[in-house]
Amino acid sequence: MRRWNGWGDDAIDFPLNEDMRAFLRDRVGAGTPPTDATLAQACRAVAPSRLPPQRGIDTAPEVRLRHALGQSLPDWLKLRYGKVDRVPDGVAFPESGEQVRELLAYAKQASALVIPYGGGTSVVGHLSVPDAAQPVLTISLARLSRLLDLDRQAQLATFGAGVAGPDLEAQLRAHGYTLGHFPQSFEYSTLGGWVVTRSSGQQSLRYGRIEQLFAGGKVETPSGTLAIPSFPASAAGTDLREVVLGSEGRIGILTEATVRITSLPQREAFHAVFFPTWAAAEDAVRSIAQARLPLSMLRLSNSIETLTMLTMAGKSRLLSLMQAYLGWRGCRGQKCMLLVGASGDAAGVASAIGQALEVARRFHGVHVGEAIGKKWKHNRFRNVYLRNALWQHGYAVDTVETAVDWPRVGAMMHAVEQAARDAFAACGERAHIYTHLSHMYAQGASVYSTFAYRLAGSYEADLARWQALKGAVCDAIVATGGTISHQHGVGIDHAPYLAAEKGTLGLGAMRELCRHFDPSGMMNPGKLLAA
Amino acid sequence: MRRWNGWGDDAIDFPLNEDMRAFLRDRVGAGTPPTDATLAQACRAVAPSRLPPQRGIDTAPEVRLRHALGQSLPDWLKLRYGKVDRVPDGVAFPESGEQVRELLAYAKQASALVIPYGGGTSVVGHLSVPDAAQPVLTISLARLSRLLDLDRQAQLATFGAGVAGPDLEAQLRAHGYTLGHFPQSFEYSTLGGWVVTRSSGQQSLRYGRIEQLFAGGKVETPSGTLAIPSFPASAAGTDLREVVLGSEGRIGILTEATVRITSLPQREAFHAVFFPTWAAAEDAVRSIAQARLPLSMLRLSNSIETLTMLTMAGKSRLLSLMQAYLGWRGCRGQKCMLLVGASGDAAGVASAIGQALEVARRFHGVHVGEAIGKKWKHNRFRNVYLRNALWQHGYAVDTVETAVDWPRVGAMMHAVEQAARDAFAACGERAHIYTHLSHMYAQGASVYSTFAYRLAGSYEADLARWQALKGAVCDAIVATGGTISHQHGVGIDHAPYLAAEKGTLGLGAMRELCRHFDPSGMMNPGKLLAA
Repeated sequence: MRRWNGWGDDAIDFPLNEDMRAFLRDRVGAGTPPTDATLAQACRAVAPSRLPPQRGIDTAPEVRLRHALGQSLPDWLKLRYGKVDRVPDGVAFPESGEQVRELLAYAKQASALVIPYGGGTSVVGHLSVPDAAQPVLTISLARLSRLLDLDRQAQLATFGAGVAGPDLEAQLRAHGYTLGHFPQSFEYSTLGGWVVTRSSGQQSLRYGRIEQLFAGGKVETPSGTLAIPSFPASAAGTDLREVVLGSEGRIGILTEATVRITSLPQREAFHAVFFPTWAAAEDAVRSIAQARLPLSMLRLSNSIETLTMLTMAGKSRLLSLMQAYLGWRGCRGQKCMLLVGASGDAAGVASAIGQALEVARRFHGVHVGEAIGKKWKHNRFRNVYLRNALWQHGYAVDTVETAVDWPRVGAMMHAVEQAARDAFAACGERAHIYTHLSHMYAQGASVYSTFAYRLAGSYEADLARWQALKGAVCDAIVATGGTISHQHGVGIDHAPYLAAEKGTLGLGAMRELCRHFDPSGMMNPGKLLAA
Repeated sequence: MRRWNGWGDDAIDFPLNEDMRAFLRDRVGAGTPPTDATLAQACRAVAPSRLPPQRGIDTAPEVRLRHALGQSLPDWLKLRYGKVDRVPDGVAFPESGEQVRELLAYAKQASALVIPYGGGTSVVGHLSVPDAAQPVLTISLARLSRLLDLDRQAQLATFGAGVAGPDLEAQLRAHGYTLGHFPQSFEYSTLGGWVVTRSSGQQSLRYGRIEQLFAGGKVETPSGTLAIPSFPASAAGTDLREVVLGSEGRIGILTEATVRITSLPQREAFHAVFFPTWAAAEDAVRSIAQARLPLSMLRLSNSIETLTMLTMAGKSRLLSLMQAYLGWRGCRGQKCMLLVGASGDAAGVASAIGQALEVARRFHGVHVGEAIGKKWKHNRFRNVYLRNALWQHGYAVDTVETAVDWPRVGAMMHAVEQAARDAFAACGERAHIYTHLSHMYAQGASVYSTFAYRLAGSYEADLARWQALKGAVCDAIVATGGTISHQHGVGIDHAPYLAAEKGTLGLGAMRELCRHFDPSGMMNPGKLLAA
């Protein structure tokens, strides 16, 4: 069953090996395992529902608790320390667009606020229940998950927007297709959630971001139904898909989405290349991205992330041999690992990988084959389970990501890492900090940093620690010219930083759009645009 | 000097050969060359300016006349028959964003309406002067054409938005780059015009539509300056670039645009392939598009367009030999020509073309080498001069284009052609009608039809003929599920058809955006959104 206070299915554990525990003790100090609140305790704290009774709306405390929060670190702190102060007053599970329309009408009549719920994987507070006098209805899209139409000739599939990653891929695979959208949250996140938060998958280099995959759909809004037909392209004024993309529940609920699909690739390969320094690695990966090779993924870890990944992989004869070989080839303490992926027919994959490796060689890249890439692929959706294990050992982990043009990529990495280091130093703690470039473009790259640190042991202290970290790294992102999010969205946590990139006039345009579709402001208030 | 009442530079003629004249006589009847109004006559008809005098605003009749219209057929009818009933009251040529701001302030104070003017190549009425009591100020961006910044590492260039195609490419070529955006209007159309009308270039398969190339910029609006920073990608709410794209002058004036550029390709090739039937050709081109090969162009002519192009090419020994060879290979009266382009390094081009030809062979495609492709490339921006020559022989020519998913591509071609045929039959005329697919996507294609027919000889009769044609083909597009424009925009001519694809709620959102940036409705009223 799905964990109520952590990531994923409670049958799956991804424990820390002893090397990794020693590594963390050495870098940030020994953690003190905290005492978690129990589900029963948390349920007892749930206040009575304020919604008028309605068939199809579940008001059971556990159901409401399980839909109260996402996966951000402040969300975790509330769950783990038993501080869930607000939960929705009810949760509905509509099975059709019509039922969603009825629920919106019911909510309007009950003066209720509405929070759309996809897979519950938001890491920026999209699901938080506002501190408001009105009751709150959460609408889960879980039962809107069917493949509604498959157009083989146009390579289009229409799904209920609540379909989660594995279900979506399974339904397509049965017909020989893939969407190819694989964010780390894939196991639970949904098609509709991807669209309204502008998600990007690990293989977006081949398949595109969700912006490129989303071809049209239906949105139920308080002002009526917005139906967006699918065209290959159009020059007819505003692209209404763009009004839905990144709308984060503020204009309505996406109930159906048509997406561009691709024939399943014959072959998929992920190769690892090591570089002696970050400078060489960054030059190489920029050159590869700008050569526009038909690759599916480029993922470059800095030296600390490389060291962390090798430590997590544990000790093996193969790894020792590889490390020795790399040392002999000049890749030692500062070495950085690049993963290069390609998908397609066998000849195309071989050719694309071959061309990428040729560029890498020009920058002293050392190719070590597919073993590490296979391991990465195997664990691509499991690494996120590490958060559970780290918590049990008394450590918190959080991440932040941005995207920035190439001339500022290196500066961004340093600025974010330094800001985090300083924030922890100010409270007398150390943090284990590392970064990778997760998505490459000809123009620049996304910069994705991870911070592991010791829990303070109380809700208030840990929240303060996180707030200091989050404020420092977000300030650094804005100051260095990055977008406040490349793939996670805005939610509550990033809303204060949005004005820096949209400007007052731009933010005003977003507000006008929300007002048009939701005149009374009942849809997911406080998210995306601060009140 | 630029023609005041036709396409292009008056030093350039692209005459019809005798074969082509005979071909047209045979297909639609002999044309009667009309008598054009003179520039002097047209200037004499220009009414006095209603604008309060202002330094930097030119109110000379000829300047105002030359900025009064675009290149749509109704625009031509007005110019050629001396029926230019409305011209702007003045034309300004600002040299900076600040001067644009001052002009907007001046216009606001004078209660004037503002029409932004790029290259004057609109074919849907973007530049028409509204029939209003207020004076009208046209703001030409011609002097905002400098390369303002070049970021080699991020492959970004920032230009004044008034830069026209050849000037833009020349400035980039000096540094080893290209934008790769080549619409047929390239010679005069501007970067800003491309952005605000969602233009698509002939090699968009490689370089992307202008949506993909436009990375950020500055827009001067009546509500203030909208500055859009450039990021490689972002998940931070609404993408403000999308508010500018397709805005058609309704929210303000784009003064600066940052675009994604590419290193100049080492090699560029265009190969011709003939197919025995449309069905085979369409299957082939869909398969090639869905194979996602790194090509730069796919352009498929139907059999009548193929015949027209071969007739225009005239008689030569090489062409006769080719026709004989094609006949022997099964490509006869119904043959359809596909042009396949690729750009990049020599090996990449050879490989991409090779793979495309391999797919074409599976559908009985016969490859005839590069000669026709070279000829096409040579004339790619000259064919549009044929409009002048046709007019002199008493023929009008107009085009219409849409995009639709693959299952409806063939039906769309037939529906549009039949609608046009019926419209002309109703007035006792024949039209020479042909179609090509101009841009291919995995999802579908753009369908681009051309209509050549005899002039009636009077403004009123020719306008009625055109209105009947335009109404019939636009109705067919909407009824067959296409977008009202794939690359020309909406302007005045397509505005009545917009509701079919945007819906009332979607149109309302577009109106709210316009209102936000332009509360008094002074910017290009009547365009995009009908009053």
